[in-house]
Amino acid sequence: MNFTALGAPHFVLAEVGEISESAIFGALLVSTTIIFLTSHVWEEICTWLRLPPVLGQLIGGIILGVSALKVLVFADGETVINPAVIHLIRQTTEADAAGALTAYSHQLIAISEGAANLGVVALLFLIGLESDFDRLLKVGPQAAIVAGAGVVLPFVGGTAGLMTLFHMPLLAAIFGGAALTATSIGITAKVLKDLGQLQSTEGQIIIGAAVLDDLMGILILALVVSLVKDAAIDVTGLGLLLLSTVGFVGFVVLLRSPIANAFTALNKWLRSDNSVLVLGIMFALLMAAIANAIHLEAILGAFAAGVMLSGSELRQQLLERFEPITGILAPIFFIVVGAKTDISILNPAHPGSATGLWMAAVLIVIAVLGKVAASYLLPRTEGLNRLAIGIGMVPRGEVGLVFVGISSSVDILSTELTAAIVLMVVATTLIAPLLLRWALPGENTVPAMTAESLSEG
Amino acid sequence: MNFTALGAPHFVLAEVGEISESAIFGALLVSTTIIFLTSHVWEEICTWLRLPPVLGQLIGGIILGVSALKVLVFADGETVINPAVIHLIRQTTEADAAGALTAYSHQLIAISEGAANLGVVALLFLIGLESDFDRLLKVGPQAAIVAGAGVVLPFVGGTAGLMTLFHMPLLAAIFGGAALTATSIGITAKVLKDLGQLQSTEGQIIIGAAVLDDLMGILILALVVSLVKDAAIDVTGLGLLLLSTVGFVGFVVLLRSPIANAFTALNKWLRSDNSVLVLGIMFALLMAAIANAIHLEAILGAFAAGVMLSGSELRQQLLERFEPITGILAPIFFIVVGAKTDISILNPAHPGSATGLWMAAVLIVIAVLGKVAASYLLPRTEGLNRLAIGIGMVPRGEVGLVFVGISSSVDILSTELTAAIVLMVVATTLIAPLLLRWALPGENTVPAMTAESLSEG
Repeated sequence: MNFTALGAPHFVLAEVGEISESAIFGALLVSTTIIFLTSHVWEEICTWLRLPPVLGQLIGGIILGVSALKVLVFADGETVINPAVIHLIRQTTEADAAGALTAYSHQLIAISEGAANLGVVALLFLIGLESDFDRLLKVGPQAAIVAGAGVVLPFVGGTAGLMTLFHMPLLAAIFGGAALTATSIGITAKVLKDLGQLQSTEGQIIIGAAVLDDLMGILILALVVSLVKDAAIDVTGLGLLLLSTVGFVGFVVLLRSPIANAFTALNKWLRSDNSVLVLGIMFALLMAAIANAIHLEAILGAFAAGVMLSGSELRQQLLERFEPITGILAPIFFIVVGAKTDISILNPAHPGSATGLWMAAVLIVIAVLGKVAASYLLPRTEGLNRLAIGIGMVPRGEVGLVFVGISSSVDILSTELTAAIVLMVVATTLIAPLLLRWALPGENTVPAMTAESLSEG
Repeated sequence: MNFTALGAPHFVLAEVGEISESAIFGALLVSTTIIFLTSHVWEEICTWLRLPPVLGQLIGGIILGVSALKVLVFADGETVINPAVIHLIRQTTEADAAGALTAYSHQLIAISEGAANLGVVALLFLIGLESDFDRLLKVGPQAAIVAGAGVVLPFVGGTAGLMTLFHMPLLAAIFGGAALTATSIGITAKVLKDLGQLQSTEGQIIIGAAVLDDLMGILILALVVSLVKDAAIDVTGLGLLLLSTVGFVGFVVLLRSPIANAFTALNKWLRSDNSVLVLGIMFALLMAAIANAIHLEAILGAFAAGVMLSGSELRQQLLERFEPITGILAPIFFIVVGAKTDISILNPAHPGSATGLWMAAVLIVIAVLGKVAASYLLPRTEGLNRLAIGIGMVPRGEVGLVFVGISSSVDILSTELTAAIVLMVVATTLIAPLLLRWALPGENTVPAMTAESLSEG
């Protein structure tokens, strides 16, 4: 067995020697600063325009990646790295410049992919932690209608549209349809908060439905990915998968309270400063490993861990301590997703661009109409703004992008469809805050820049 | 140029295929959970015994590493990985088990080394941020005496002792002496806080001297490492290095206020939630890159960034948001340091063990006596407990371990000396809280387990 034929960054470094190691570390520090800077400039621009920050991270990633600057590229070969980076390493490296460049490139890829994977696990754990099942129960029936129909209509519409209009194979069409289902609870909650609508009846129903939607979306993701891995609709496999899913969900629902209470009790007994945070992270990692082991997705396990610990008395403390960690790690996931997305397909000069844009337009229409139609299935009630509820469900945000990120590893989507899904996510995330401001007239639509919002930042 | 001969984890994965990728990710999740669990159990044991948590992380690392469990090993080859891990991967991998094992090992090394490097940068940034130059000014002259003599005495004593008693070469002896100089401000402040002595005159002097000591320790580290890199005492090089050091320190001192104010103003102008945290991290990375570029250490740059931003109005907010990040990353540094330390040298059956233990005993005596002697250089004052001040300066903690961590990359220390330094750090960190409780009799020596300390945890 030859363990040295495949040189990991660690061993490459040892070969390249002292001076290069310092140059590589320097180049990595500079690249990381550029990555954070580019992403944050766009996040800030989006915030000024009252658009979700996640949009800025995605745009920043697209600019840093293979489509533009080529600072963060996930392929080997000198030709795909920005010449300025190559020049920097060549200038500061006295010994083996080519070896140093390879080591730099491999380390940057390993670290950013590791951080992105941990980032999406952290994000789903946080989303789970923020879920509020008690709030859902109050508006239960209404939220269930909006969520259920809001998953079924875009899923069926998207799958059918992709198969009939674009002659996509069934699996790819299902994957595309599934990417249309989930509402981003993070983005929706943030937009409602900015509009001062979080406590209205519409706001309550939207949040309730978004929680349910998120759960269904992740289950659909797990189902679809597992389907895709088996490369065909395997009835036994699907049955087993449904069984693990049901078993997993049952495990979460039944053990939510006992585990939350055990977590609280254990932390009250433990004395080290870090316990709440470290135990929370260990539980998230463990549940991710379990979900991974029973052929569900690791992120579903992390989400389940969050849901279970959301029942703990220490939830607020865990949220506060975990939030800065997600604040740093989660953007890396979106940056990496953006960096991996080759948007050159949308360039009008490109042969596939007309198809990609046309496909994106169809997906956007289905994504918006599907959610709005679902909300009109609610019984007509005096003073209930059903249009606003439907629009509130429109932003796809992080959950939609998780589909894109995962699709790159299972290699089921064409480049056109990947680009069209990214465009759909960007468009729905961009449209929703604007439409919601229009659908909720006469309300306080301009969020005040208070001391509180400053101290938050 | 052959970029594909060296297979980074990313490309290895693509070759190994889908099923192995999931198995590798699962094995990584399980390993990470085991690493956090082992380290946290020891951190908790140390906290119960009222010893610093850093000691637990170090012990956990030693247990996880090459000396015992072999879960976290930084060398290639199947023989050095725990057989249970190998078995796990073999069981769950259907395709290429050997390739999967290599990919797993390389990814674990890349991620844990990356996290450890970021962890020590984050820690030094936090230490800088926690430094309080205003407090130092009040007890300035006394703190300067304790700090100055407390650096010189152990440094000279350690270097001379290693050269005369153990016939060490000059550079190795200087490195060993330098590792004795710096007081851990984090550990000292934590111990004083636990004893309720943070606001006493002795406490003020200790903190003031520890801040100064930390700064000098890091300068000495930069000097010594640069010296070692040049492999000889190069007068021109040393002159240039002194010039960069002075220039760098001058830059920090002169621009501290303007940069802190600019940081505050920029963050008040920016609107995105994440700005304080992301800008702080970007500044730390940028300063680390600058320090690295002028041949100082990256950690010195991160420390300088922290010192500069400690003048900002937003310091408290930055500390609160940054603390959980350091809380997760910094332990990984200590775990990695522990894992890399081969303590088999201290096994009585080992030929070098007598030398290593004897060397450790000498270093411990010099480390304690040097700091206590320095405090007795203070003028005798009614009611001033000079012994307590000296003992308060004894714990070496993270700064001492930074020397060990860096020494493994410059390859200057013998395995005996490395083990002896680790033992010295462990012993001084362990002795200080016990001695301090004895040196400060009649005080509130039992910290109450209040609601506050619980809500902290």
